[in-house]
Amino acid sequence: MVDLDHYLQETKAAVDLALMVDLPSAGTSKVGDAMRYSVEAGGKRLRPILCLATAHLLGTGQKAVIGIACALELVHAYSLIHDDLPAMDDSDLRRGKPSCHVVFGEAIAVLAGDALLTLAFEKVAAYGLENRQAAKAVRIATVLAVAAGVKGMIGGQELDLLAEGQTLTLQRVEEIAALKTGALFKAAVKCGALAAGAGQREIKVLSSFASSIGKAFQIVDDLLDSRGTVAELGKPVAADLKKAKATLPVLLGTEAAQARADQLYRLATAELKKLKGNTELLQMLAHRLVYRVN
Amino acid sequence: MVDLDHYLQETKAAVDLALMVDLPSAGTSKVGDAMRYSVEAGGKRLRPILCLATAHLLGTGQKAVIGIACALELVHAYSLIHDDLPAMDDSDLRRGKPSCHVVFGEAIAVLAGDALLTLAFEKVAAYGLENRQAAKAVRIATVLAVAAGVKGMIGGQELDLLAEGQTLTLQRVEEIAALKTGALFKAAVKCGALAAGAGQREIKVLSSFASSIGKAFQIVDDLLDSRGTVAELGKPVAADLKKAKATLPVLLGTEAAQARADQLYRLATAELKKLKGNTELLQMLAHRLVYRVN
Repeated sequence: MVDLDHYLQETKAAVDLALMVDLPSAGTSKVGDAMRYSVEAGGKRLRPILCLATAHLLGTGQKAVIGIACALELVHAYSLIHDDLPAMDDSDLRRGKPSCHVVFGEAIAVLAGDALLTLAFEKVAAYGLENRQAAKAVRIATVLAVAAGVKGMIGGQELDLLAEGQTLTLQRVEEIAALKTGALFKAAVKCGALAAGAGQREIKVLSSFASSIGKAFQIVDDLLDSRGTVAELGKPVAADLKKAKATLPVLLGTEAAQARADQLYRLATAELKKLKGNTELLQMLAHRLVYRVN
Repeated sequence: MVDLDHYLQETKAAVDLALMVDLPSAGTSKVGDAMRYSVEAGGKRLRPILCLATAHLLGTGQKAVIGIACALELVHAYSLIHDDLPAMDDSDLRRGKPSCHVVFGEAIAVLAGDALLTLAFEKVAAYGLENRQAAKAVRIATVLAVAAGVKGMIGGQELDLLAEGQTLTLQRVEEIAALKTGALFKAAVKCGALAAGAGQREIKVLSSFASSIGKAFQIVDDLLDSRGTVAELGKPVAADLKKAKATLPVLLGTEAAQARADQLYRLATAELKKLKGNTELLQMLAHRLVYRVN
């Protein structure tokens, strides 16, 4: 039986170490320091871990995929910096610390986000060069770019901005979550699968798994946000509620929202049963993502 | 003899067409419309043209390289949108039209820049996938990412921001220009060379050529800016001077600055003489870039 806590701890440590190597050395530039600040601010490294766990399931080890795993975290970190900007969600607190623009100013924060996004693609290209995996690298870069672009995260952020103060349908709320959170979760799993040389069928099943887990993760995030305290969550409590942003718990109530998360978890694990190999790790990971307490 | 005007016109038209195909259709999203607005706002497509002219010199036609040429322009367009933001250079006018954030608001402008940068790497990956040139694509993506990143354009923009109101040395002014403008000029030529399968020696010579032309181009830009009118330049006149930004003409005077541009032009053309093949097109292009009147 997999010791999930041990796996998460070890894998997070490996990702943290690789990320620090990739980032500009401390003190060489303000943008570099802002990049480090935001990446070091923490986070659970869920996207890299999903990527690595998927590759592991398909028989490919951490060392070969760590660069891709880091690229996913860099894209996530960039999106948080830009989302927090005054012109966007105007959030002063992120993971219990002042947001990047609060510490470094808006101009440097914009540039730090830009630089993290750019570095993500540099990492994917480096994976292709260093491992003689150019063919895989271009497929991974495509998946990452599409997930991050107007049909993915950026599209989701636009819909989210336009949604402020609007009454949204359930369908639209789920659409926003699928783009803002789901797209990169799905990309994490797909990139891990591509790096491990997965076939079309495996990629399809794993994408469907990731899609359900991404949706469930977002619902749980919203549930925790509606109940949590600043100390627990490291971000302003019920910020979405104050801004009158519709979330699934707001629309359906917490019980029905939890039931939807449960259903999505069952859908996700049903997908895993279609795969050969030992899916225990991904299954436990899915459980943790959906039934976490912070 | 090459008809340069005809070449520039035809190549720009081909790049414009390819760019419009790449961008989201009009009216599908605000971010998509902001991307189109900024890319359609014009510009001479100098980076794509440098890329295509370099590939042409090395025997590789437009069709094979147009995706890479577009990626260079997308990176350029993203950088202009973010540079113009209120927190950055706070420029309301770009190419004679209201800047992206003036028309679409800051949030959408940030996202449009992000999306253009993301699309640039998607284009490079697509070049690798569609042309079965994955090995070239990962090298090109690396060149583009490094040129756009903290050791290139973003680093230059940081130095430029920090330079406001400061007294700069000649060396620092040239350093900023090398990063802000030179890095992408050099990347344009290198990417064209890589796509055409150039060897190390050719790449080195062409990079040196591009580096000199990039520096000369920036000096001429500053000279035109110090003399021009809004109608001619499409941006606020002498904006750099008003913000007390040091430029080479400000530091040296216009005559000495022109002499430096002349010298850089001669250095650039001397590099071209080291190459086999018909370098007439690149030479004429270099002349036009340095001795342009707008």
